[in-house]
Amino acid sequence: MTPLTQADCDALDRDDPLAGFRSEFLLPDGVIYLVGHSLGPMPKAAAAAVNRAVQQEWGEGLIRSWNRAGWFDLPYRLGARLAPLIGARPDEVVLADATGLNLFKAAALALALNPGRKTVVMEGSNFPTNNYVVQGLAALLAQGHQIRFAEKPDISAAIDSDTAAVILTHVHYRTAHILDMAGITRDAHAKGALAVWDLCHSAGVLDVDLNAADADLAVGCTYKYLNGGPGSPAFVFLAKRHQDKAGQPLTGWWGHRTPFAFERDYQPKPGIGQLLTGTQPILSLRAAEAGIDLAARADRVLVRDKAGRLGDLLIALVEQRCAGHGFTLVSPRQGRERGGHVGFDHPQGYSVMKALIARGVIGDFRAPCSLRFGGSPLALRYGDMWRAVDFLAEIMDKEIWKQPAYQTAEAVT
Amino acid sequence: MTPLTQADCDALDRDDPLAGFRSEFLLPDGVIYLVGHSLGPMPKAAAAAVNRAVQQEWGEGLIRSWNRAGWFDLPYRLGARLAPLIGARPDEVVLADATGLNLFKAAALALALNPGRKTVVMEGSNFPTNNYVVQGLAALLAQGHQIRFAEKPDISAAIDSDTAAVILTHVHYRTAHILDMAGITRDAHAKGALAVWDLCHSAGVLDVDLNAADADLAVGCTYKYLNGGPGSPAFVFLAKRHQDKAGQPLTGWWGHRTPFAFERDYQPKPGIGQLLTGTQPILSLRAAEAGIDLAARADRVLVRDKAGRLGDLLIALVEQRCAGHGFTLVSPRQGRERGGHVGFDHPQGYSVMKALIARGVIGDFRAPCSLRFGGSPLALRYGDMWRAVDFLAEIMDKEIWKQPAYQTAEAVT
Repeated sequence: MTPLTQADCDALDRDDPLAGFRSEFLLPDGVIYLVGHSLGPMPKAAAAAVNRAVQQEWGEGLIRSWNRAGWFDLPYRLGARLAPLIGARPDEVVLADATGLNLFKAAALALALNPGRKTVVMEGSNFPTNNYVVQGLAALLAQGHQIRFAEKPDISAAIDSDTAAVILTHVHYRTAHILDMAGITRDAHAKGALAVWDLCHSAGVLDVDLNAADADLAVGCTYKYLNGGPGSPAFVFLAKRHQDKAGQPLTGWWGHRTPFAFERDYQPKPGIGQLLTGTQPILSLRAAEAGIDLAARADRVLVRDKAGRLGDLLIALVEQRCAGHGFTLVSPRQGRERGGHVGFDHPQGYSVMKALIARGVIGDFRAPCSLRFGGSPLALRYGDMWRAVDFLAEIMDKEIWKQPAYQTAEAVT
Repeated sequence: MTPLTQADCDALDRDDPLAGFRSEFLLPDGVIYLVGHSLGPMPKAAAAAVNRAVQQEWGEGLIRSWNRAGWFDLPYRLGARLAPLIGARPDEVVLADATGLNLFKAAALALALNPGRKTVVMEGSNFPTNNYVVQGLAALLAQGHQIRFAEKPDISAAIDSDTAAVILTHVHYRTAHILDMAGITRDAHAKGALAVWDLCHSAGVLDVDLNAADADLAVGCTYKYLNGGPGSPAFVFLAKRHQDKAGQPLTGWWGHRTPFAFERDYQPKPGIGQLLTGTQPILSLRAAEAGIDLAARADRVLVRDKAGRLGDLLIALVEQRCAGHGFTLVSPRQGRERGGHVGFDHPQGYSVMKALIARGVIGDFRAPCSLRFGGSPLALRYGDMWRAVDFLAEIMDKEIWKQPAYQTAEAVT
């Protein structure tokens, strides 16, 4: 392959139909931000929305804003706004709580919808908080539920007649490989199991279609590719066909049929509303709203396509300009098989990432030795990949990563 | 009693040692805000803190702010800051999630610490979301746990050798009566039960002392008397002597012993950290921090005393100026027996409150017929009580509440 040049990369940016979105973000000078897969950058509209929520809604509106500013409806309204991005109906999604808490609700619902079966199939190498959630639920239930861990090629084979549900993260947090949502869901259903999908690394970057895949439940965060702000509330999806068949256990006033009747006993709200528990952090929801609105304006297929091409370009540049420096690609080579980031292992990955960050190229590091680079295609340029690898090549060629400042054991980001 | 005058009330404000705190809040012109027991008003420092969190921490700092801006430590740091306000040690409290979710953790822990016993004693008339949480937990456990509902005078008598825990709200959401935390906890312990306290209507207004009362667990919100902003994250307290004896079931990465080792299986963090589950809404935490900081600067005994005197004044004014208009005091008459609000029942309470709100006096209404007036003594003046009752008397004397505009069934706040 002919070596790529900076001019090649800049040409790709000139032809990018999504290029206009970049100006919607605040991106600090001197920084090439390649960690949008962990915390998306700030949409300028988010700052305005949060400021309005603080000054006008809270400060001036006070308690009246629950109705006048629509605070009560935010979990539903944002769920409906997000729904088309993940192939859901507007009445199948709400925003509330942290991802893990929503997974607890979703897992409990899946087990309740499929009683008698005791096995949950999960991808053991993926982001482990999902394991922790299911382990916590199983310990609480004390009914002998077990997790069967299986890796990507073996997942469907691990599903059997005792499998209550597969609970899988669609895109792998380290490698960015994509699981076949439609295929695995079909295999699960064929064995009588439900499929619960974690879309943390998918929503806002891949053209997810939960209903086309016939998925049963799903969860995901809004602070990665949806650019909703640090710790912004997560979402939970429950397919219409399952609604009102079983209850989730984190019951609270916001999921009650008549929350202002102050009835002594719990009665679930019909529909998706019973997935709500307690009062939500409104300021963080307002930031999430701005991020979701921005994502909803972009063509999902163009976004997915650009994510693949950005990663392809990064891989090609690293292989051309850092050859022989010990980087091992851990992500799929083909863009259509990857999520929105690219992972490389490097034995000195920790020090390399520290040296990169010192130059303003912010990627992240995941133990034991993975470097990850990615982010929303709405904010990234092809030229950013060139500049990032230009620094990386310099750090490797000149062995800058060996400097004492980059060897200390404090956290890199 | 000699009728009170506006001059009497203004004189109380001139002598108020807490008067200086009022200027720390944004309080809109033309509004007398008497719903701080539902959503506290905005500390001016909160607006600045949230703006900084959005622009500098998220916008400029991006992912680096997890360490540089201390986002990771916020649940601990805010817990430690709040601890003295509730008589806890700094390492016994964290801020995270909604109150109901923390109650789920606390209730599950209490049952795990007291296995074999099947009864939970609760005050059935109090804010029912706590009932819903325990009902959801009991249904999930499927071990025959039952709630025994008892009202205030009968709570200690309802505790027996099958009682695993009392789970009680310290201040009643409607009447503001205070339960005897130390006495009931002692009675519970004498029967081998644990005591879990909900401090939603106590923290920031009463001089709660969890450890003096020997309480086992506690939860509470930060958006009422702590003025933390709409839906700001709640807190959870676990007494040091119980830490590391049992696990809570909402297990997630933020409560893991080594969250960045990405171990496949859950191992709880030692100490209070295992009460954490997932990523927290940082922007809402920053607002909560400003509110807690403000509360922490005030003398708790002065705050409690002023809350009692504000309520005493309101009761006296309503009884003097609205006599014969059908108001029935539902709160204790003595300030020391009340939390931070006063409740009156009125058969037309809904319309009366609508008429009051139209004049800028914002109280709230709780079905079927309760009006509530209260809020942080840091933001309220004695003169506010005069002006509020002045409007109320006019509304009653002139039967303004009968106007059609105040009869419609939409929500009042």
